[in-house]
Amino acid sequence: MGITEEPTRPETRIRYADAPNRRITADNTIDYAYRDLGVSEVPLVLLQHFRGNLDNWDPALVDALATDRRVVAFDNVGVAATNGTTPNTVEAMAHGAIAFIESMGLERVDLLGFSLGSFAAQEIALIRPDLLRRIVLASSAPQGAAGMHGWAPDVIGAVGAPDTTPEGYLSVFFAPTDTSREAGGQAAGRIFGARTTDRDEPTTWQTRQAQYDAVCAWGIPHHSLLQRVAAIELPVFVANGDRDPMILPRYSNLLAGLLPDARLKIYPDSAHGFLFQHHNEFAADVHAFLEETIR
Amino acid sequence: MGITEEPTRPETRIRYADAPNRRITADNTIDYAYRDLGVSEVPLVLLQHFRGNLDNWDPALVDALATDRRVVAFDNVGVAATNGTTPNTVEAMAHGAIAFIESMGLERVDLLGFSLGSFAAQEIALIRPDLLRRIVLASSAPQGAAGMHGWAPDVIGAVGAPDTTPEGYLSVFFAPTDTSREAGGQAAGRIFGARTTDRDEPTTWQTRQAQYDAVCAWGIPHHSLLQRVAAIELPVFVANGDRDPMILPRYSNLLAGLLPDARLKIYPDSAHGFLFQHHNEFAADVHAFLEETIR
Repeated sequence: MGITEEPTRPETRIRYADAPNRRITADNTIDYAYRDLGVSEVPLVLLQHFRGNLDNWDPALVDALATDRRVVAFDNVGVAATNGTTPNTVEAMAHGAIAFIESMGLERVDLLGFSLGSFAAQEIALIRPDLLRRIVLASSAPQGAAGMHGWAPDVIGAVGAPDTTPEGYLSVFFAPTDTSREAGGQAAGRIFGARTTDRDEPTTWQTRQAQYDAVCAWGIPHHSLLQRVAAIELPVFVANGDRDPMILPRYSNLLAGLLPDARLKIYPDSAHGFLFQHHNEFAADVHAFLEETIR
Repeated sequence: MGITEEPTRPETRIRYADAPNRRITADNTIDYAYRDLGVSEVPLVLLQHFRGNLDNWDPALVDALATDRRVVAFDNVGVAATNGTTPNTVEAMAHGAIAFIESMGLERVDLLGFSLGSFAAQEIALIRPDLLRRIVLASSAPQGAAGMHGWAPDVIGAVGAPDTTPEGYLSVFFAPTDTSREAGGQAAGRIFGARTTDRDEPTTWQTRQAQYDAVCAWGIPHHSLLQRVAAIELPVFVANGDRDPMILPRYSNLLAGLLPDARLKIYPDSAHGFLFQHHNEFAADVHAFLEETIR
């Protein structure tokens, strides 16, 4: 027996692109699809963006995160290979995520919520704070903030159509600069090319409609609701790209100002997919935040 | 006649430490003390912090700002060499500043409000938006934000006593690091040593009490009042030090998130006096912001 007693798990050294698809049935009778890699006492659970499935995480980001910790990605209720019907409220999505985390036997986790997943992360922090240790909110906004209702027409036009296109994806996730679009091409190559077998199932139109309903409801302007996140006392890392057209970086400023204990970083020359573009820097920042022991 | 036709003014090339004390009487019958240097079409008017007079601006900062533009510093109503009684509301301070700006014949100005002066700058933007072009808010917070009422006991203890001390000043304006305290010593040397004759009059206990009343009223928690700054449609540059104990940087995040058109920068290893510590960087950032022609 060595000095350290790390649990031995088969996924410890594998890449996200090679991580097996796993399934687990929760108390809500939903059969969740997930992938699980890396090792740490407190795992980092990922909450995915609008219409995204397990394959829409940039493998380079997940691998960078999993260098230091256990990372668990999953499809929430009704999304891709997870059965059930995608709920049309962020609150119900939060309950779906809590049920998955409980089914895994995880008593305390860190969360990384991205876009719609960051809305769910806020709700989890409000509904079940004891389940969480620290929270990362990427491309996020507080419920009720003025000016974000339904996203800009060109944004929902680009990523909300029945058939999504690489051009639409790049226009929202990457900034209109040579450097960002080049990074976008590389990220898209990894997302759509690194895993060639056992890819996740595509998300459905039902998922798209239910998730967009939830996004629109979240964005109904209601100044009083901004106070809700003042109840999140956990440490939070708020991050976005400086040119995100989908969820403007001003909402990250706002969120970090409303949260009692938040750090904020706005990444340059990047948009909604800043965490894919700057995957090494972002993973290092997430690591530093999650390992912080003093304030 | 040369290619440019800049107005010739005697203060064009002088340093702030040598700028003459001037006086002007406004329509409100107040006789304001001010200093005026540099040249530009739109002047930058400075709004001073709690208990500060004309000499409490770091000369190195004013000189860096005045390289590119006309800079006007003044004592507001009842403060130091300006007569009258210091008002006890931010709104009345804003009206006092508007009366001064009008008396100078200035039709449109940029504002740099620092701390209490940044509260007045927000009020001016709400009361008289047409008077302003662009606004810089240094070490600021929106009215009604939770958690800032009356400042922390050690902060008001350090700068609110009848007799202020260099130690108290340094503890609030500079961070508890070797680099920041070293910068603080240099700034204090410039503030208290660069100008040896014709210094401004000290501020009184009446000013201290009235200004602190205004600060406390501004900090009464009232979530609904956060909406007020949404009416400021002008471009705003929000800035603070990352370790400001007087007005926490989270309030700069909040302000930048609430304002429709704000840029935000948090300066490292610095506190309330970040703009003195990082005077060259801050002046360059202010210049870039004020000269911005595209968004």
